[in-house]
Order: sequence, then C-alpha cells, then structure tokens
Amino acid sequence: MPNSYDNSLNPFFAPQGIAVVGASQNPTKLGYGLARNLIQSNFQGAVHFINPKGGHLFGNPIYCNIADAPAPIDLAMILIPASAVPRALRDCGERGIRAAIIASGGFRETGKYGAELESECLKIAEHFNMRLLGPNCIGLLDTHLPLDATFLPPPGPLPGEVAFISHSGAICAAVIDWARGQGFGLSRLVSLGNQVDVNETDVLAPVAADRFTRVLTLYLEAVSDGRKFVSIARQLTRQKPIIAIKVGRYAGGQRAVESHTGAMAGQESAFNAAFRRAGVIRADTSEEMFDWARALAWCKPPNGRAIAVLTNAGGPGVTAADAIEAYQLRLTSFSNHTRHSLRDILPAAASLHNPVDMLATASPEQYARCLAVLLDDAGVDAVMVILPPPPMHTAGAVAKALIPVIHDTNKPVIIALMGEKLIQEAVEHFRAAQIPEYRFPERAASALAVLAERTEYLQLDLDPPAECCQVERERVAALLAESQPGALETTMLAKILGAYGITAAPSELATSPESAIQQAGLLGFPVALKIASPDILHKSDIGGVLLNLKNSQAVAEGYEKIMANAKRARPEASLRGIHVQKMLNHGQEIIIGALQDPQFGPMVMFGSGGVEVEKLGDVAFALAPVSRQEVSYLLDKTWAGKRLYGYRHLPPADRETVLDVILRLGQLAADFPQIMEIEINPLQVMPKNEGVFAIDVRGSLQ
Amino acid sequence: MPNSYDNSLNPFFAPQGIAVVGASQNPTKLGYGLARNLIQSNFQGAVHFINPKGGHLFGNPIYCNIADAPAPIDLAMILIPASAVPRALRDCGERGIRAAIIASGGFRETGKYGAELESECLKIAEHFNMRLLGPNCIGLLDTHLPLDATFLPPPGPLPGEVAFISHSGAICAAVIDWARGQGFGLSRLVSLGNQVDVNETDVLAPVAADRFTRVLTLYLEAVSDGRKFVSIARQLTRQKPIIAIKVGRYAGGQRAVESHTGAMAGQESAFNAAFRRAGVIRADTSEEMFDWARALAWCKPPNGRAIAVLTNAGGPGVTAADAIEAYQLRLTSFSNHTRHSLRDILPAAASLHNPVDMLATASPEQYARCLAVLLDDAGVDAVMVILPPPPMHTAGAVAKALIPVIHDTNKPVIIALMGEKLIQEAVEHFRAAQIPEYRFPERAASALAVLAERTEYLQLDLDPPAECCQVERERVAALLAESQPGALETTMLAKILGAYGITAAPSELATSPESAIQQAGLLGFPVALKIASPDILHKSDIGGVLLNLKNSQAVAEGYEKIMANAKRARPEASLRGIHVQKMLNHGQEIIIGALQDPQFGPMVMFGSGGVEVEKLGDVAFALAPVSRQEVSYLLDKTWAGKRLYGYRHLPPADRETVLDVILRLGQLAADFPQIMEIEINPLQVMPKNEGVFAIDVRGSLQ
Repeated sequence: MPNSYDNSLNPFFAPQGIAVVGASQNPTKLGYGLARNLIQSNFQGAVHFINPKGGHLFGNPIYCNIADAPAPIDLAMILIPASAVPRALRDCGERGIRAAIIASGGFRETGKYGAELESECLKIAEHFNMRLLGPNCIGLLDTHLPLDATFLPPPGPLPGEVAFISHSGAICAAVIDWARGQGFGLSRLVSLGNQVDVNETDVLAPVAADRFTRVLTLYLEAVSDGRKFVSIARQLTRQKPIIAIKVGRYAGGQRAVESHTGAMAGQESAFNAAFRRAGVIRADTSEEMFDWARALAWCKPPNGRAIAVLTNAGGPGVTAADAIEAYQLRLTSFSNHTRHSLRDILPAAASLHNPVDMLATASPEQYARCLAVLLDDAGVDAVMVILPPPPMHTAGAVAKALIPVIHDTNKPVIIALMGEKLIQEAVEHFRAAQIPEYRFPERAASALAVLAERTEYLQLDLDPPAECCQVERERVAALLAESQPGALETTMLAKILGAYGITAAPSELATSPESAIQQAGLLGFPVALKIASPDILHKSDIGGVLLNLKNSQAVAEGYEKIMANAKRARPEASLRGIHVQKMLNHGQEIIIGALQDPQFGPMVMFGSGGVEVEKLGDVAFALAPVSRQEVSYLLDKTWAGKRLYGYRHLPPADRETVLDVILRLGQLAADFPQIMEIEINPLQVMPKNEGVFAIDVRGSLQ
Repeated sequence: MPNSYDNSLNPFFAPQGIAVVGASQNPTKLGYGLARNLIQSNFQGAVHFINPKGGHLFGNPIYCNIADAPAPIDLAMILIPASAVPRALRDCGERGIRAAIIASGGFRETGKYGAELESECLKIAEHFNMRLLGPNCIGLLDTHLPLDATFLPPPGPLPGEVAFISHSGAICAAVIDWARGQGFGLSRLVSLGNQVDVNETDVLAPVAADRFTRVLTLYLEAVSDGRKFVSIARQLTRQKPIIAIKVGRYAGGQRAVESHTGAMAGQESAFNAAFRRAGVIRADTSEEMFDWARALAWCKPPNGRAIAVLTNAGGPGVTAADAIEAYQLRLTSFSNHTRHSLRDILPAAASLHNPVDMLATASPEQYARCLAVLLDDAGVDAVMVILPPPPMHTAGAVAKALIPVIHDTNKPVIIALMGEKLIQEAVEHFRAAQIPEYRFPERAASALAVLAERTEYLQLDLDPPAECCQVERERVAALLAESQPGALETTMLAKILGAYGITAAPSELATSPESAIQQAGLLGFPVALKIASPDILHKSDIGGVLLNLKNSQAVAEGYEKIMANAKRARPEASLRGIHVQKMLNHGQEIIIGALQDPQFGPMVMFGSGGVEVEKLGDVAFALAPVSRQEVSYLLDKTWAGKRLYGYRHLPPADRETVLDVILRLGQLAADFPQIMEIEINPLQVMPKNEGVFAIDVRGSLQ
C-alpha cells in the first residue's frame, strides 16, 4: 500500500501478547466468551487472563493483577464494569501496554456520568501514550492471523477477503453470522464503538494494508474528520475498493439556511460528494454492500460494459436483460463466429441472440461449451450465467462443468442461481470456487455494474484540484475584513465575485425614480429593477423585482411600486434603494452556489436555477476546490449541464465559461471558509464564447 | 368473490379425473415426472395414464388410447412431441374432454412450423369447445386440493396462501424451489406458456376465488387485452391484493412519435397507469414481490403509517429509522404512559424514544413485554422488531416469547432477523407462526409500507370515471369526418378542443404582414406570431415562433422573418400563413396530452411543459377517461401539479379548471380513438378562477 500509517496501531493488528482484563470462568459472562474466542481462534501469541478472583481458565492461570502476568503483552482487552475501567487502564499503562480495546459498555452512550468516565479513560491513555479502541465495542478479529478478540457466540466468520469496519457492534454480530450463510469469509473486522480515540479513518490504512483483504466494507454513522477521511480513502481506493453504507440519512436537524444551495445541501449531498471524491462506492443496503464486495473480491474487473447472458429459459433472460439496461450495462451483440459456434452446440430452436437461450434441455456440457464460446468473443466484457433448477439435469452438475471454464478466463462471470433447495449443491461448488452467485438476475446485474464502475474508476486520471489562475485573494480578504457576519450586500458580493473573475450583469444603484431612469438610460433598455436591501434575500418573494421594463415611465412607476412592496412586506428592513440592471434576454439560466459543510468543509453546487431549485432537484454537489474533471461530472449529471450543449432550438451556451466560473467559486469557498454560503441564481449563460453574467447573488458571512 | 368467471375453466381448478397423455415408465422423461407428481401429490380424483406402449405405472394401468380410459376424465394433461399433439387433442375432444393442458414445447416459440401446429391445436379446441392451457408450460398445481399437475422435480411447494401466475415456466420452477427456502407456501400456481387460449386475465378470477389464496402474484411479460385485464383486476383487488412483476421493460422498439406525450408514453407509463387503475401493486424484483406477498398474506393491514421500532442495538435501529423514512412511513412518538411502562421494564440506560433500544442485554421477556406495551399505544399502527443475534440469549427464545404477543394483536408486527445461522431457530418459529421475518430492516420497512398502502387503497372511494358534463360529441365527429389521417391543422384542433370546452388563447390567422398587423391591433399588443403549417409540428425548432411583439413594426418584420425561416428549414412544407396570438404573460405553463396506447387504449398525460418535457420527466399518465380522483393523483404526483397551489411568489393558479380540462381531454381521447395523439403545450394556467388557455396544440389522426 502506498501510505504508511501510525504504527502505534500495530498492537491492534499484530499483537505479540494479549491480556484479557475481566476473563471469567462463568460461561454466561461475556468475559468467558472473549477468553474462549481468543483460545479457540488459535491465536499464536501469548494470551493472559486477568481477574482478581484468580483461578484457571482453558488450562491457563488467571492472574489477579495485570502486573503479575508475564511478557509479552502489547494489547489489553478490557471487559469489566465501566466504573472499574479507568483503574484497569492505569494498571495497563504502568505495565507498559500501549494499546487497549475497551469492550465494556456504560460510557457516553448511557449519559453524562458515562461520558465523564470516557473522558477520564482518554486522559489516562494520553498520559501513557496509549491507543484506545472502543469503548462499547465488540472488539476485532483477523481470520488469517488468526485472532478473534470478540466476545460473540461462535461460530466466527470463515477466512475470506472482505474486511468490515463498523460503527455498530450489533451489525458486526449480524454480518459475521450472515456472511457464513451467504458463503463468504471476512479477513478483518473492527468494531469501533464510541471512538474515544481510534476512529474509522485511523483504521482504514492498517486494514487495507492486510494482504488477505481485497475489499473494505464500512458501516458508517458519521465521519470524524471529513477531509482526512476523503484524503486517506482516496489513496486507498486506487489499490483496493472501499464500499460504504452511511446510515442516519434522515437524522440530525436541518440547520437554518437562507439560500437554495443551503436548502439542497446537508449530510446526504455532502457524503455523496465526499464518497465520489474519495472513490468510495456507496451502497444503500447491507445486502447490496456484500453482494458487491463478493464480486469485487473474487472477479477481475471487466474491460467494459458489454454483457452476454447465457440462460436455459426465456423468462429469466428477459428479467436479466431488463436489469442489465437498468444498471446502464449493455447487452452486446455477437460476432458471426460466435453465432456459428453456438449453432454447432445448441438445438435448432435455441436462441443465438443475446440472451442466449439454450432451452430447458441444456446439459452441463452445453452450458460449459457455450460459456467458453461467449468468453472467446472479443465483444463480450463479462457474462451472466442464469441457472434456474434445470428440469433434466442437476444444477450441481452444471456448476461443476462451468467452474473450470470460469477459472480459465480473465473476464468476470457472475451466476444467477434461481431457487433454493434444488440449487444448493451448485451454490456450494460456486462458493468454494470463489465465483459470485446471486439468487436473482437483478442482483447479478447489480454486481456486474459495480465491476464495470471499478474499471472506469481505475481508468480515471485523478488530476489534482486545479488552482484558478487569476484570483485576487488579498482584495477579497480586505473586503471581508470590513464586513459584518450575516447577509452580504449586493454591491459587496459583486466586488467579491469580481475579484475572483466572475462578472455580474451591468447594474447600478438608484436611490430615486429619477436616478433609476438615468441609470436605465445609461445601461440601455430593457432593464430590471431589484430592491437593494441587506435584509431581503429572496427579493422576488416580496414583489421586490420587476423585469423587462422598456421605458422611463415604466422605470419610474416600477421604482415606486417596488419600494412600496418592500415597505409593506418588511417594514423593519433597511432599504438602500433599487438596483437597475440591464436585461439579458437570451441565454440559459442556471444556479451555482458554494457553502461550508460542517463535516466536509467547502462545497460547490451546480444545477437548474430559478425559484424552483429545491423542487426540481436538478443539482449536484462537489467538494471544493474542484478539479475540471469533477466540474465536468456536475455538468454531465444534471439536465442544466447537459442543456448547455444546446437542445432543440436552444443554441449551445458558453459551457467553458460556466466550468471556469464553478472552478472560481469553488476556489473562493475554499480560500474563505468565513463565507458561509454564496449563491448565484440565476447565472445567465450566454451563447458560446459570449460569457456568463451573475444576475442575482446572495451570500452570508459567519 | 364478487365476480363470476367462465365455468369452462372449472376442470383446470377442480378436475374430477385427469388423463396424462404421454405418461412414461422411463424416470428420465418428463412424462414420468408428471405422473409421479400427480400420484404423489395425493390428488383425490381419478388419474389415468395414456401411452400407446401400454403397461403399468405406479400401480395403475397405462391405456394405449384415451378412448379406453374409464370415466371420469374432464382434464387432459398432454406431454408428447408437438407434432403428435393435434391428434391427441382430437382424441380428447371426441372422448368428451373439454379442458387440456399442453405442457409440450415445440410450438410458436420455435418458429413458423411450431406456430402453425399451435393454430391447428386452437382450431381443434374451438371445434370441440375445449379450453387449452399452454402449450409450452409446466402445468399447474393446487397445494390444498391437492393437485400437482407439473413435471418439475420434487419437492413441490408447501401449502400456503400465495398464488402465483406466470408467463414463464422457468420462473415457476425457481419460485417453487425458492419459496421453500424462504419458508412460505403457495396456494395455486399456473404456468401460462404460449397462451394459445387461456391467458393471464382469464385465470385471475378463478385463482382469486380459491378460499386458501390470500394474495395473488403475477409474473407478466405482456397483457393480452389491456382494458379487460384492468377491469377484472380492479374488481378482484378490492378483495385480495394482487402484486405483479412486469418484465420486458426495455424490450420492444419505440414507435415513431411526434409529440412529447408520445415520447414520454410507451409500455412502462402505460403499465404503471393500468396497474394504478386496477389497484395492482407493481414490484420491481421477484424478491420484493414475495417479501410483500408474505406480509399481505399474514398480516392485518395497519390503521396508518405510524411505526414503532423495538431493537436491542442502536445501529440496526438507525438503519430501520432511515428505511422507515425512505418508505414514507413515520416513526411515531409514544404516549407518556408508554414511556413510563417501558421505563419499568428496561434498564436506565435504555432509550425509551423511538426506536426503543432495550440494549444488548435484552431478555426474551423484555422483548415480549416491551412489544406488548408498544402495541397498546394508540399512536402505534405497526411495529418492527429488530433481532440481531443477541449476545446473552438465543434468538429462538426471543421468538418464542414474542409469538404469543403478536398473535394476540390486530396490529401488524414485522421482524427484522439479522444474521443467518444463529437466528435459524427463530426463523423457523416465526415461519411456523406465519409472522413475516426479513433479514434486514430495509426489507422489513418495505413490507410495512406495502401494508400501509393496502390500507389506503381499501379506504379509497373508487368512484367511476366521471363523464364530462358538456361536450359536443357530434360536432367533433363531424369535424373528424372531414379530416385526413396525419397531422391536424391548428384551426381544426382549436375547433375540436372548443367542442369539448377547452379554450384556446385568442388567435387569428394572418396571410400577410398587413393582415397580421390588423389582427394584432384587434387582439391587443403584445402578441406572438406562429407559423401556420400542417407540416410543421415543432414550430419553435425551426424559428417559427416569435413572442412578445409590442408594436406593428415588430409584427410586420416578424411575419417576414418567420416565413423566411420556415421556407429555409422546410422547403417542402405547405405554409398557410401565420397565427397571431394574444400573449398571456402571467400564469403557469403546463403540458397536457392524450394518446392511444396499443395495449391499454386512451391515456392522458399531465406535467411540466415547455420544450424540455422529456428531460424534466415531471409527468404522469392515467387511463382515459379519468375520474377526478385520478386527476388529483396526476396533479399531486408532479411538481407541475403541486405548483398550481402557488409557490413562493407564484400565486395560486386555476387548479380547478386544469382538473376539468384534463377530464375533458381524457373524454375526447376515449370518445375518439381515431385521434392518435393530441397535446396542449403549453396550457397557460391563469390565476385562480381566471381559467386556462391552450397556447400551442398539436395532434394527429390515425
């Protein structure tokens, strides 16, 4: 692995000797379970049991005190009542132990007193320069070392290639048990508990460094340091795939927001943007995560998205074809050579198109020979083999015939084994051969899609975020220094954006109907009038905007009308006058915005603008500063972005300048975290090579 | 059940005696499997084997000829080479048999010769007034009768409450096998095969009439007669839920379409609209269908969407909370009484909020007592109980404690049993007790959501489609009689819509710049100019539209410009002049359309209009004619519809008139199937009580 990690974590992953503080002779106690698992897992280092009651356990002496236990001990596993933990930690520290897993519960999760105990533990650990995992966790395990430092009832997981890191201990227990039923093993498992010290980001690199681990899976409730997580995960995902579930989607109050950008942001958008930057694959459910993990652990990535389907029945073939399209894979067409070869193998009534329907009579040999033919076709990147219980043969015999062909190819082959009892033997053959099998074609297609995405991710050139060439940082720093927290004024916003090379539509402040007429004359008709007030962010909501005014009379009347509307709607607002703005009646309108996310810091948003931003939902986020590549993603992901290429009678717009402006706004948000939110809505995008203009801007300082 | 069905189908579902034509003594033949299943399924009627070779099978004589077999025989099960089937059918007919299942393959699915054989079979059946199931099917079974008339290898399904009707035989085999593994039984299963006679719609009522069947599940590749399917399913779903998978989403070429409505329509929209009208629940995957079927078969529908979650760990509780929100259910809050009762049962550190986290120490008794408390809370409509492998107790013991509480309530309780081996005993207890259990909280939440939807569906007042009060059918009939197939002219469209009470924006045809100026003067400025040509449907794409013209000079110049644009873009087009239309510069723009779907007939569409209809995708379809209730659904499902209530500075629009216009357009499409497509885009919706105006209309006759 490219990146090193803090070697203070070594004792967790390669301990020389382990002390079990709280080992118990009573089989109903978790301290018994922990001792049992350590012994039964066949851990090769020293294991010492500590309990003031003394005695023997599994043939080993129980020491009354950790000081009495012989060397080597570099990891303590603590499972005693919470109130006794600080004292035990101190003993460990004095004994020279520099790593401890506190499995005990009764800490922060139970309230104030527990939280104080937890802080005390952290202080002790810091004093002794000791690393802590937990408290309130189920421990960790490594099936290859081997080491089972959990108190879970047996059986533990089978040795495997998938590592699991979890914020929830109960999910660990369920996943271990479920993985056995699903026929895949785990390499390492880390239960993080309350994370008083070691957190999810700390363990990423040491777990990824394990040579048996091919895929990392994460169950996340939050991320401790958003940017650090992204930066470390981004390095690791080039080597090994990381798949994450992030729960707590709907938890956490919405913070008060004033912009559309703020309203559309929030945890989910931020996590999606962060995972994308980090190359972390986001799964929606645990089933999906492990479906994908098996495929990524066992299959070589395909060259592309061209899929062949081999089936012995039409119905499942149609289902597979639907799923392949739904996952943006492609049913490929075959070469003539392939079709001829299939014809030689199959009866006349078989379908030689994709999906290849061999008919219900298909024998194990026909399955194997047809699969070999499909894999030989240069136009096939991967194959899905569908196997409902065959009426004339056993699924087990088909599996045995297929496995050598699959082991003989570099292309991924995924099996949709439909049924349960009649396919059990086949299931076991495939699992033993490390070939992913799923109960339904839909899940098989989902796994194929993740494999294709992995290929595409590895092909991506991860250029670093581009620095904007010409921005006046000092000027903005000076402007912000003279501003107060809260909403920024329109003129100030125009200056800030101007310093970063973002142009506002020509506009002047008028303080009377007469000056409005004069400004309009200078700008040229038609013009728009907009209320100028630091207290009114959504101007149109209070009748503070008039568009398309064609002559002096309309401007004078408009001035009075807007002022009256504003005074009526917001009697307390300070009104500075009215902005007179030149109307730009062609081009396309979009929204771009930036904000500071509490977990991941500066972010930019792009999408369809107007007042209906939240309702249309046609927006995408990225962490700032952004690279050109990521901006291209934002543009390609949204309809607002695609439309910039032109659509029907809409001429192509100045997409290049939009891209540049997003880069600049991202740079601004990254350079000045005190800018809480800033949003241009609409940004008027003129036809190609004619630039863009910020029509309406709002923003606030924190 | 309310509706009777053709009693010619009775022999399939309650046969007195069955003849197996093609019964074989050779255990590798399907004809042996069929005979074996009939005998082993313990069918109580007569079973007679027919094979020219004679002999004995399972202790019964094999008759050389069906004429030799004794009465009663009212169903023939035919499993012989396709070419011999017509002869066998004729023998059956002469023997007085009026129902036959042709299990043999080798018919239409193999090509032209097979298709001819199939037609021959149908002719023979018609001659003898005989009903046919198949050919190319695996037969049918009824676990309660009992009767297994399939040739599938054992074991067959367990007796249960879920019926399965399938266009695919292979899927039947997989589902039977998979259902055993998932621990639910089937009541009836029908494999439809090529449907030369009996189709999916025919068997709905007889299957629903089975007293053991509580839920019908369908695997559909198409529907034979769209409207008949909807009408029959609509009656049945009031009594028993129907869940369907429709495959072949992406199959079938797109037909050539000229309108946005046509582009957005197609199989998927039509099936969604048809299923909604029929009350059929659409599942995306087989797993989802049977997850839902178990819940619907075993649980009483809840009173509402307020869910309580009972868990022994925080992590799965968070996952459940996410899933509950995602499925539009609601985590309820508890009464004080409930909180106090829970406090009495649980340790101090337990969380008494929803989800209730009893902590990992939770005992079977605590699970049971807490569940009883939650079920007693009037604010709780349903409960999800989460059970990861508990560290201190067995999941089996928890299951045993929970089951009496669940059997004692009218509220649905769904179990998320997380894991595999450690929960196996619990799985078996719950299955035996007919309590739905799922491996993950996400799937459990999905099942709860379907139960809530069932309640809401049953509460719906299914008012019949409303007839529009005042429409001039005869006038439209006359107008259409004088029109040619193909695009309809703007003036003609305005007349047709006018006859159905839909008003176009004031507009006049001008044939010169001078007459355009004159018309504009009469209508009042500003005006829009639009090319008048039956050959140009998308006027703005060719520069055939100018908006907001304020004076005579602009109108004159505009006339010339549009004419020049049209001649350049479409030299072949016939140009009638230019429509001068009064500009309506306020209100909201929407699209409404209607078309004839090849499977389901007349349909209406509503949504966000403009040129970007296809890209925004904010549209919904319903079968025409529509009821007010269904129109309300269209309005509530789309942002275009929600916005009619007003949004930010957008005043409420004339929603009532929009509703009325959709009713009228639906009526028009239903009254005149020769109108292939008709579309108003935009329909300008004025503020409340000020009506709506069709701004641009296109349509075509077939």
